[in-house]
Amino acid sequence: MSAQPGACVIGIDFGTLSGRAVVVRVADGEELGSAVHEYPHGVIERELPASGERLPPDWALQDPEDYLDVLRTAVPAAVEAAGVAPGDVIGIATDFTASTPLPVLADGTPLCRLSGLEDRPHAYPKLWKHHAAQGQADRINALAEERGEPWLPRYGGRISSEWEFAKALQVLEEDADAYERTERWVEAADWIVWQLCGEETRNACTAGYKAIHQDGRYPSAEYLAALDERFAGFVSEKIDGPPLVALGSRAGSLTARAAEWTGLPEGIAVAAGNVDAHVTAPAAQAIDPGQMLAVMGTSTCHVMNAESLAEVPGMCGVVDGGITPGLWGYEAGQSGVGDIFGWFVDNAVPPRYHEQARERGLDVHGLLSELAGELEIGEHGLLALDWHSGNRSVLVDHELSGLIVGLKLSTRAEHVYRALIEATAFGTRKILDAFADAGVPVRELFVAGGLLKNPVIMQIYADVTRRPLHLIGSEQGPALGSAMHAAVAAGAYEDIHAASAAMGRVTRDAYVPDEARSAAYDPLYDHYSRLHDHFGRGGDEVMHALRRRDGGPAARD
Amino acid sequence: MSAQPGACVIGIDFGTLSGRAVVVRVADGEELGSAVHEYPHGVIERELPASGERLPPDWALQDPEDYLDVLRTAVPAAVEAAGVAPGDVIGIATDFTASTPLPVLADGTPLCRLSGLEDRPHAYPKLWKHHAAQGQADRINALAEERGEPWLPRYGGRISSEWEFAKALQVLEEDADAYERTERWVEAADWIVWQLCGEETRNACTAGYKAIHQDGRYPSAEYLAALDERFAGFVSEKIDGPPLVALGSRAGSLTARAAEWTGLPEGIAVAAGNVDAHVTAPAAQAIDPGQMLAVMGTSTCHVMNAESLAEVPGMCGVVDGGITPGLWGYEAGQSGVGDIFGWFVDNAVPPRYHEQARERGLDVHGLLSELAGELEIGEHGLLALDWHSGNRSVLVDHELSGLIVGLKLSTRAEHVYRALIEATAFGTRKILDAFADAGVPVRELFVAGGLLKNPVIMQIYADVTRRPLHLIGSEQGPALGSAMHAAVAAGAYEDIHAASAAMGRVTRDAYVPDEARSAAYDPLYDHYSRLHDHFGRGGDEVMHALRRRDGGPAARD
Repeated sequence: MSAQPGACVIGIDFGTLSGRAVVVRVADGEELGSAVHEYPHGVIERELPASGERLPPDWALQDPEDYLDVLRTAVPAAVEAAGVAPGDVIGIATDFTASTPLPVLADGTPLCRLSGLEDRPHAYPKLWKHHAAQGQADRINALAEERGEPWLPRYGGRISSEWEFAKALQVLEEDADAYERTERWVEAADWIVWQLCGEETRNACTAGYKAIHQDGRYPSAEYLAALDERFAGFVSEKIDGPPLVALGSRAGSLTARAAEWTGLPEGIAVAAGNVDAHVTAPAAQAIDPGQMLAVMGTSTCHVMNAESLAEVPGMCGVVDGGITPGLWGYEAGQSGVGDIFGWFVDNAVPPRYHEQARERGLDVHGLLSELAGELEIGEHGLLALDWHSGNRSVLVDHELSGLIVGLKLSTRAEHVYRALIEATAFGTRKILDAFADAGVPVRELFVAGGLLKNPVIMQIYADVTRRPLHLIGSEQGPALGSAMHAAVAAGAYEDIHAASAAMGRVTRDAYVPDEARSAAYDPLYDHYSRLHDHFGRGGDEVMHALRRRDGGPAARD
Repeated sequence: MSAQPGACVIGIDFGTLSGRAVVVRVADGEELGSAVHEYPHGVIERELPASGERLPPDWALQDPEDYLDVLRTAVPAAVEAAGVAPGDVIGIATDFTASTPLPVLADGTPLCRLSGLEDRPHAYPKLWKHHAAQGQADRINALAEERGEPWLPRYGGRISSEWEFAKALQVLEEDADAYERTERWVEAADWIVWQLCGEETRNACTAGYKAIHQDGRYPSAEYLAALDERFAGFVSEKIDGPPLVALGSRAGSLTARAAEWTGLPEGIAVAAGNVDAHVTAPAAQAIDPGQMLAVMGTSTCHVMNAESLAEVPGMCGVVDGGITPGLWGYEAGQSGVGDIFGWFVDNAVPPRYHEQARERGLDVHGLLSELAGELEIGEHGLLALDWHSGNRSVLVDHELSGLIVGLKLSTRAEHVYRALIEATAFGTRKILDAFADAGVPVRELFVAGGLLKNPVIMQIYADVTRRPLHLIGSEQGPALGSAMHAAVAAGAYEDIHAASAAMGRVTRDAYVPDEARSAAYDPLYDHYSRLHDHFGRGGDEVMHALRRRDGGPAARD
């Protein structure tokens, strides 16, 4: 560590609904103060505020002014809460949802800020959960497969409709004028850094995972032209150009304008952009090869470094330096986890549980977890597939759906609740198996995210995966991880590994597997696997048929 | 009709929890008055009242004194409610749950009435839903299959643990002394007739469906000896002997004792015993060949006459004269129907539906039916298997369980409710298909039972089965059917067909299928069939595995 004793850094986590700034001591990672700013516009899903225009289904936009408000309000508030002098802050770093790209001018001005364009939906940032570019993603995948594009296997064989190319192609096809006026197509993760330091950069993480940057290049102009003649120049004109920057490197220095917004000293280090899940890995001290971090919230994101490049079927992506420089960063995911439990509590739990929870001062999740935790393994006689939001890894199929078998007249809410938890644990085990089979075994399993507070869920995961769980020791993992990157960018640590060692927070072996319980889960996992393959790999196409009938997406994501 | 103009008959329906007597006018079937008597002992499932002894799981006994109380209280009350003179009553008939056998002395005295035996569980009637003789049923089936017993195919290839032989064998094996002291083993359906007319008879319905009486004989002594040497004389000593009587025939005349109980004239006609579902067929005018009656309540029982004998896979049984004399009576069933809907409402519907129902003065079934009825076919994107209580027909497997596929975060209670209704309708269609495939096609579909009041359920059944539904016009179908048999036994009608024509009640074409909706259901039924065969015919044994793990019955019923 080479910084003043009282030196601090600021990490800012830009989430789906709000941004959170945290002031962190460089020396030991102590979180000194934080503040949250809720986005006034939230997620723009139904109508565009500027015009009242109804948005089609599956759209999700944001207003970039909300992001700047986080700089103006949450940052000074966090500094004040921390009780530190602004002059003690030596660097700032950010992480963002991704892929959340936006169209901007060459100077970084968002298209939606231009007079006459504020009523054009395609002029706004497309939030990660904008799912209206599925048709474009399908064509991107089909053509890439047909041409044998070398990058396709790096994404488990299929790129997502959430990512930059599909969303940009949607702009071109649906609003050619907006596409034409887009001078740069940039991830919000890079745009916010641009606003802070005045330099346009592309960070290695989103460039690799979301913009198909592999082996030093983006998809070729020939490939893009074959998609659409007008798309041929997309990379050269709107993406490529600015430096590709490693995570933790210094993207630039805080501008006078940004210093004014934030109340921080002009000229301090601004780190390269980053992504919420990936930036959390060093905060949990989970960046050595074979250490997988599962960020478990409404969905689960799995990130892991490895020394070698492998093609893991169904992974979201593998990117050189995608988590930390010098290692291959792997990402996988489960589309639905906490949101399935939330759906269940909201839609399938009868009044007596709500009443009992109220009487006991618990929430319904707490009550159901307690009751579920008392059950023997197999006692409920149920088995579920956790595909209520589709399956990201390893099947990469958003048309799948949830299933439960074993229902009886004696089935009660806590039985189903436990079966749903177990199903998501089996889904995680499926991902661990895929990594092992591909030659990049998961040596250790770390957990971050809101679900780590639930001991029943944690113990089931330890038992099902036969692994000790190491839990992150911070409730603000992404912001803490960002702060570490700020410290590295400011030169306080040589690299993110050193920063992680000094500033990270982890409780090792917080939950350990019990051999008898693990053994009891093995045959259930075998049954899960049979259902998984039967419904997920073509044995019975009923899930796709049912999705088509109900007007859901007809194609795969 | 050959009776006095004001002549009446009484039908008594002995159900699971109560007995109902109805006074009916012979001339036109008008129901003049009725009364119900709840059994004081109800279903004895947990402990024997006489001793406080805990009963093992799956036991279900009754107290025969409760049945006599129905004669003593409900009959005179019904006569009073009807406002008729007892002297106008020319006959009485009964129907009963089945198989509900009891051990008695040669004079009809129940063993449980004997001093010193009142604390012996095996001295009591075993109610139809006593399921503790599964081991015996398994051995009965295995041996019958091994020996190629000719009667086995008449029961879809498997007899039930609910029936007379399995229950008697359980008595022998678990309380040899009680078995030894049993002089007659008799269905409650025949025992109550014995109490009314003083004559022991065996009615063609229970003898055929529950006591394996086929082609004029019961299972052979050789077969019984092979089961257990001590069981060799079961038929000759405890079952056979009394006349086998056709349905609607006169079993005898009301004794002085029974006349005193009931307040009815001594000497009036007492009809042969009968069973609740079967006796309802003439009440619904559903006794011509090819007219199937579905009695839809917590479970569904299907009965149908045909001119020819066929072996329908998975039927419960086919019996010569089992519904009406001179035709082959077929029976099939669905183990769970209304009880699945009830389970769902009690265990999987969140508070806001209960509140809304309360505000609107509906019950939750009414609210969910209304919401479910507004959905387009396929809109909910769900498909279920209706096996929460196992599958009676056509798979004859009580170890199966319920399944639902297509769950999404947008799934709501009314979606699942409709999917469950549809699943039971698909289950009915599966039974209709099996009859057609076996050469005894269902020409017309009639409905009785509590569910006929739900228009959403009825329309779905019409659409799924592509058949108009004819609904019984009485809320007391079994008792009305019994009353018809009393009229025939009293000589007022030549046969049950004539009585049915004059006294029956049916609303024909109450619901008719819509071609577009039927066509929309066809592909869903195809998917149901694939799931049905995959999980029900060995494609995936997960349901059996889950049942074994949760301590449920390990074998098939």
